[in-house]
Amino acid sequence: MTHTIVPNWLRKRADLTPERPAVILHDNIVTFAELDKRAQSVARRLIRMGVHKGDHVALLFPNGLEIIELIHGLEYIGAVMVLLNTRLSAHELAWQIEDANVAHVLYDLSFLEKVQEIRQNHRLPHLAWRTVSEMMEHPETATEELQMEFDLDQTHTIIYTSGTTGYPKGVQLCYGNHWWSAIGSALNLGLHLDDRWLACVPMFHVSGLSILMRSVMYGIAMVVLESFDPKQVNDAIIRQHVTIVSVVSAMLKQMVDELEDSHRRYPETFRCMLLGGGPAPLPILEACKAFDIPIYQTYGMTETASQIVTLSPEYMLQKLGSAGKPLFQAQLQIVQDGEVQKPMQAGEILVKGPNVTKGYWNRADATAHVFTQGWLHTGDIGYLDEDGFLYVLDRRSDLIVSGGENIYPAELEAVLLSHPAILEAGVTGMEDPVWGKIPAAFVKIRPGQIIDEKELKTFCFGKLASYKIPKCFYSVVQLPRNASNKLLRRELLGLVDATGTRKI
Amino acid sequence: MTHTIVPNWLRKRADLTPERPAVILHDNIVTFAELDKRAQSVARRLIRMGVHKGDHVALLFPNGLEIIELIHGLEYIGAVMVLLNTRLSAHELAWQIEDANVAHVLYDLSFLEKVQEIRQNHRLPHLAWRTVSEMMEHPETATEELQMEFDLDQTHTIIYTSGTTGYPKGVQLCYGNHWWSAIGSALNLGLHLDDRWLACVPMFHVSGLSILMRSVMYGIAMVVLESFDPKQVNDAIIRQHVTIVSVVSAMLKQMVDELEDSHRRYPETFRCMLLGGGPAPLPILEACKAFDIPIYQTYGMTETASQIVTLSPEYMLQKLGSAGKPLFQAQLQIVQDGEVQKPMQAGEILVKGPNVTKGYWNRADATAHVFTQGWLHTGDIGYLDEDGFLYVLDRRSDLIVSGGENIYPAELEAVLLSHPAILEAGVTGMEDPVWGKIPAAFVKIRPGQIIDEKELKTFCFGKLASYKIPKCFYSVVQLPRNASNKLLRRELLGLVDATGTRKI
Repeated sequence: MTHTIVPNWLRKRADLTPERPAVILHDNIVTFAELDKRAQSVARRLIRMGVHKGDHVALLFPNGLEIIELIHGLEYIGAVMVLLNTRLSAHELAWQIEDANVAHVLYDLSFLEKVQEIRQNHRLPHLAWRTVSEMMEHPETATEELQMEFDLDQTHTIIYTSGTTGYPKGVQLCYGNHWWSAIGSALNLGLHLDDRWLACVPMFHVSGLSILMRSVMYGIAMVVLESFDPKQVNDAIIRQHVTIVSVVSAMLKQMVDELEDSHRRYPETFRCMLLGGGPAPLPILEACKAFDIPIYQTYGMTETASQIVTLSPEYMLQKLGSAGKPLFQAQLQIVQDGEVQKPMQAGEILVKGPNVTKGYWNRADATAHVFTQGWLHTGDIGYLDEDGFLYVLDRRSDLIVSGGENIYPAELEAVLLSHPAILEAGVTGMEDPVWGKIPAAFVKIRPGQIIDEKELKTFCFGKLASYKIPKCFYSVVQLPRNASNKLLRRELLGLVDATGTRKI
Repeated sequence: MTHTIVPNWLRKRADLTPERPAVILHDNIVTFAELDKRAQSVARRLIRMGVHKGDHVALLFPNGLEIIELIHGLEYIGAVMVLLNTRLSAHELAWQIEDANVAHVLYDLSFLEKVQEIRQNHRLPHLAWRTVSEMMEHPETATEELQMEFDLDQTHTIIYTSGTTGYPKGVQLCYGNHWWSAIGSALNLGLHLDDRWLACVPMFHVSGLSILMRSVMYGIAMVVLESFDPKQVNDAIIRQHVTIVSVVSAMLKQMVDELEDSHRRYPETFRCMLLGGGPAPLPILEACKAFDIPIYQTYGMTETASQIVTLSPEYMLQKLGSAGKPLFQAQLQIVQDGEVQKPMQAGEILVKGPNVTKGYWNRADATAHVFTQGWLHTGDIGYLDEDGFLYVLDRRSDLIVSGGENIYPAELEAVLLSHPAILEAGVTGMEDPVWGKIPAAFVKIRPGQIIDEKELKTFCFGKLASYKIPKCFYSVVQLPRNASNKLLRRELLGLVDATGTRKI
């Protein structure tokens, strides 16, 4: 067995198809040759700035050309990129930066305030903070040695995700994970040389990052939007010859509504709406069918470097609620009490494949905990039907997916419990027509204490990203627990109308 | 670093797209579900017949459903398949069977005579010879353990190829070599879910075998022809919705002539004529342009598991004579005297990539000889132009490519030299309008001996496959040699009109 070595992807792509568009941002088209030139320039300046092969370099950027150049620039150095969710609080960002052993943070000026907050409140020695302008002050020469080959086992990215414990863990994705994810997707969706993939999901998430990867490997353009706006997204699809879009249910609903209101339709060349973040409700799917929008529902997570299970549109109504079948390179098992389950029997979803992470950064214990002989325990519950289609019943660790962002109850509960008036806390997701789910908190208040909603929200603010702050709070007499006193989050919603419960 | 494990390809494909056509043979359509069922049945019977994981199993079959089922059946066992060129002589076949340490030969009844000749003249103990009917006599049960996962480092195929020495060497191709070759091709040609790839080249060559691989990985049908006939091929392209064909120049010329004669054209959906076996002459390319046939010229060899360099059709006339650029996963260097050459400087072509063989079966010396730090020395001479396009000047070891078959002069010379009347022999390729090149022999005859063409051809017959037997023989006074007495094959053609040369 030998290491698998491949040429630097962007360099190779620029050599093969230099004139093809790589990035389309508003009316600005950047070809692969231009993108490669920019990425090499970025790499040379970063090297002069002191970034070395293997260094952990955090990026705090909105979608745009800069983060794309930086990602490819860091590939030219062989540095590991830590992609920071720009919506996190200063506190949460500081935690990840420290945990990931980051040597350099590159940030966009729009996040200056957040950066200043981190620098004032957190002692992070030996850490260099730089904007792109500061990076550009470093001259490039032709002498820096760039990484012209990739070893597929080399770590490319660290992206943080939380879990049962509430402590975020850095998922390490190697070059090979990204490669296999992109190839598995191409073997499922096909690959047209005139494809264009719209990125309106953030590139600090694996959903957006994987579009960047596919763009270079496939030689197709990515059409980039800074953020999600249904009209802008629909405009881009209709006017910029987009053929594929990655979205989550909350976005899709707004897009279909906007199409309806503006009496428009997508062009026939639009061929795939890749839908993540949980199964879509029937009304949305039916609306999509009426608009001839081909929906590919998917199931995936950061640990699988994007989708690992996908449902083709011919089954979108026939297999309603299913996430589909595992991609060509992937395998799936339903396991309960160590036994592989038969069709229609529910159990934990285990996945395996070369797109699956080799483990969490600096968390040998957590890594060992979730892997059994190459199989990743997702923590999610589901079953396979008689035809082998996956149905996800419950996301891992009571995960709340809200507008495509993952919210882990344990993380919110830990913050709530740090409030002096709160004795016990439980968080769960509540149905929401726009976001899919929103977090709702149930707290047991210390006798004699009085607390109001505004105070609780203010308390959470700064400690949690805004999207994680519970949208409603309930004071309860008792939290539901099992015999071993473990919180039963799934029973929390039943407390809303219980005796003694009051909305705070 | 870990081994890369993927699900069994055919099993996976049958799970994902059971109803899609896998093989189209005349009017017979076999779906992936059916093909998978047949392959599993074959595997179970082979196991009962005594075939084990890791065994070397030789296949002697024409194109057809049987060889496809056997190949997939052997994948289900994890046996290594030795693909035998059916055009070889009994003597040549025996040599390969023995060299490859084959335990079982499966053969088609149409080659019974050849098999009998081998069995009569060659002592090959411990070797089991079986036809498909004999295999079918072994009952299948459900108890045999099938290989449901592939390790990409596992050897899949051994295919023999000759070289400078004239001794054929078994090129070992692992599962990963086939995988990367197919993916590299898809990243170049794109992948349409309704593609159909016509296999009119033999599946015992890597050109045909790679179509079988792509069919399963891509989920597209392969349209199979038993042999090449220009009218049949054109019929298939026009009537069976073929979108891609693999051919060599000699075939292409006949196909274009037939189109012209029959006043037909390919449908617009036909999108790729993948052309191997050396650069196409200008008149053929111009004729193809007139017929709107998109030509992708390629360069590859058994060692690279099919094409490794490909020229896109937009360059087919602009870069006349070029083989194109190395595929996405591959790298290429031109090296002379240990130095990487600049553009326009000729040298030996070196290639690298995960589609390149890890080496020759049981030939550590030959393997070490052709590899330098992961780079394969092809023995071919060429240069890159300023834009990075490869031009092949001379095939390795004076290789003669005749109608898509490789002929190595050294192998023919060795046979000629075994004739008692021949003192010295040199073989080279002569231009031929149909076959591209045909082998021509130049011999120095022992004083006092007389020999005629018929006798020489009869002498070669049985020792060499028919297509290798020289088409003309010249008696010469002296063979061209350099200072160290090395035969200069490139100067042989100059002898045709030299004093003292006479046609035998």
